[in-house]
Amino acid sequence: MIAEIITVGTEILLGNIINTNAAYLSRRCADLGLVLYHQETVGDNMDRLCEVIGQAMNRSDIIILSGGLGPTEDDITRDAVAKVLNEEMTIDTEIKKSLVDYFKSINRDMTDSNLRQAMRLKDSIMLNNQNGTAPGMIVERENNVFILLPGPPVELEPMFENEVAKYIKSRHNSIIFSKMFKLCNASESIVEERLKDLIDVQKNPTIATYAKVGEVSIRVSAYAESENIAKELLIPVENVIRKRFKAQIFTDNEADTMESVIIDILRKHDKTLALAESCTGGMVASSIVACSGASDVLISGLVTYSNRAKIELLGVKPEKLEKYGAVSEQIAVDMVEGLIRNTGANCGIAITGIAGPNGGTKEKPVGLVYISSYYKGDLKVRKYSFKGDRNRVRLGASKYALTQLYLQIKDVEYNSCKALQ
Amino acid sequence: MIAEIITVGTEILLGNIINTNAAYLSRRCADLGLVLYHQETVGDNMDRLCEVIGQAMNRSDIIILSGGLGPTEDDITRDAVAKVLNEEMTIDTEIKKSLVDYFKSINRDMTDSNLRQAMRLKDSIMLNNQNGTAPGMIVERENNVFILLPGPPVELEPMFENEVAKYIKSRHNSIIFSKMFKLCNASESIVEERLKDLIDVQKNPTIATYAKVGEVSIRVSAYAESENIAKELLIPVENVIRKRFKAQIFTDNEADTMESVIIDILRKHDKTLALAESCTGGMVASSIVACSGASDVLISGLVTYSNRAKIELLGVKPEKLEKYGAVSEQIAVDMVEGLIRNTGANCGIAITGIAGPNGGTKEKPVGLVYISSYYKGDLKVRKYSFKGDRNRVRLGASKYALTQLYLQIKDVEYNSCKALQ
Repeated sequence: MIAEIITVGTEILLGNIINTNAAYLSRRCADLGLVLYHQETVGDNMDRLCEVIGQAMNRSDIIILSGGLGPTEDDITRDAVAKVLNEEMTIDTEIKKSLVDYFKSINRDMTDSNLRQAMRLKDSIMLNNQNGTAPGMIVERENNVFILLPGPPVELEPMFENEVAKYIKSRHNSIIFSKMFKLCNASESIVEERLKDLIDVQKNPTIATYAKVGEVSIRVSAYAESENIAKELLIPVENVIRKRFKAQIFTDNEADTMESVIIDILRKHDKTLALAESCTGGMVASSIVACSGASDVLISGLVTYSNRAKIELLGVKPEKLEKYGAVSEQIAVDMVEGLIRNTGANCGIAITGIAGPNGGTKEKPVGLVYISSYYKGDLKVRKYSFKGDRNRVRLGASKYALTQLYLQIKDVEYNSCKALQ
Repeated sequence: MIAEIITVGTEILLGNIINTNAAYLSRRCADLGLVLYHQETVGDNMDRLCEVIGQAMNRSDIIILSGGLGPTEDDITRDAVAKVLNEEMTIDTEIKKSLVDYFKSINRDMTDSNLRQAMRLKDSIMLNNQNGTAPGMIVERENNVFILLPGPPVELEPMFENEVAKYIKSRHNSIIFSKMFKLCNASESIVEERLKDLIDVQKNPTIATYAKVGEVSIRVSAYAESENIAKELLIPVENVIRKRFKAQIFTDNEADTMESVIIDILRKHDKTLALAESCTGGMVASSIVACSGASDVLISGLVTYSNRAKIELLGVKPEKLEKYGAVSEQIAVDMVEGLIRNTGANCGIAITGIAGPNGGTKEKPVGLVYISSYYKGDLKVRKYSFKGDRNRVRLGASKYALTQLYLQIKDVEYNSCKALQ
């Protein structure tokens, strides 16, 4: 079944709020096996709203509308659906009573406009709103189902989970199941190139790639009557992906991040982590602490942005800073050695670079970053050149620092395992 | 002029990413005086993308498309615009050369698909991408202007700010000039309430409020034939706003952030800053280092997430940690005192709290954060309760820590100035 999402509200068109409802509803539609080809946003304008509803009726089975169910004159979603269907609405006496009771309970007068929230279309299924006064509504007509939901996510999401999801499941008999592989040290175009043979002939399951800084993801999804059948369908594709990207896949669990994977490995090997950050200035530490459970491994993070901090906190020699410059391979090495020595951690990362916009020279341009990492006696240092503005360089350095450490840990652990065999 | 925004990408329809581009572009269109009636999202599908472009051409002057400019076969936005216009594209030799150079510089092979990014429509204005390989494009045709932008916000936003905003301004014969006031220690609903008399009768200039964590902004905008006339129109409104929110406005320069304002004040007073972060884990340090010029004031940041780091780096007494718990007023005070003592900074912030989801108790629930700040002998400690998930608590703590320090500095400097008089 094809679904379409129409979000209603002038505040979205003005950019005053980010349309998280569209993302939430789209994700839940995908989970429920609905196919989605269009999302639209229109303001609180009757003609334009009726126009997009009319268009959606011609191309989609289920039309989900969010917003415009409030009590004010701006709230026109109910009226627009009634107008397009050329139907009258009536007042639902039960909802009217609960509104009257509600306003009594909060000691406020109920205005006439609040009564608008008790209006319903014929034979509609009313949806209880546990976090607000606007009820939702499901309206079934010959070729379309309309699902009207309130705009605030705190009202919309529980209503969807508690009532709409069940309704949609009861209307159709297929589900979609997907699996996400996350890769480091990869570029999206090369990953896609290496999957081209599969993507070109894909039907079910489907394969899609996504990229963000320092990470490429591959999502494989299958439609089927049940989760078990969908999982079966995925197995051959999963096996190919695992084989082709063995060295790069750091997780096949969508909830994992590079940070959580590193924390898990260090916890498993009973190791502790310390960080020394110059240009990234705490970005790596912050991304590690973003994971609940970071306290199991992170001893401390040092933001050694100034030379003074590099000297005092890491024991870097002033004469070496003078000789090589703070952004150099030698200083990156001294930073991580001092970090391990001073914190007693088993594992560490040090980062020093030129984030810009100032401070670049011909020999050491903006974007130049040295990253050193240490694990079980093994010390690696690498030179990187990142493109982009100050924060893009910092983000790149943060992500690649974690990747470097991850690959090093895998390398050390894998080789030591091999040596034991 | 009427604008329309089309965001392209199957990952948006699947709900894998939140469409922040639509919000950003809508807000910037409003700032630039463009009227927006529709936003649409379609997947990476040629027929449907061509259909929505065709529809937009009939009702809007400027059509802004984001996404689908990458190197893979999924990236079809350029091709779709060419198809709708019934035109051929050619390869831009300059862009081709810069792509070849770029791939050489990162030691990676350039695949054939990367060449797609060098394709251009006739007479199009190419837009430089400082954070990625996909150039943007402005295509002017008889009744419409097409603006093609890359999908990643880190690429789209600088491109819009540096090139598209200027282009749109040059196309209008009226200009819009706006001024942004940024307020701390304020709630959006109260700010709006206190501006209601002005908002209710506004025509030109207009007033709009925006909220993000720890900050409320008021934007006043005027349309006029020239910047000078617009500026004149703004003066009376600006004066009212300055008077009503005197204690809360921390800048009237849109480019400023709370971080840059604090750096500027500390630089002016020749003071240095140090940070000790537990639950925020480097978030404050990272936001300070995000400002170019941070090196003038930031001595060091210590991520003292573990008790061990609080003891070793800040000299907090183990028996006090045992007695009061790491999240307590006493420990927050000891952390900032140790920070100032050990780093020799003149000014400091220490943060300790429970970010969750684990670690909360009835007495110390998730969201409880103590923040201590120090400036010129003055030590303040405050208790906060933040709502939301782990990263919402951490973000709240980071923002309010900076606000606390800012208000303290203003208080100390203002009172000492008064004392001198």
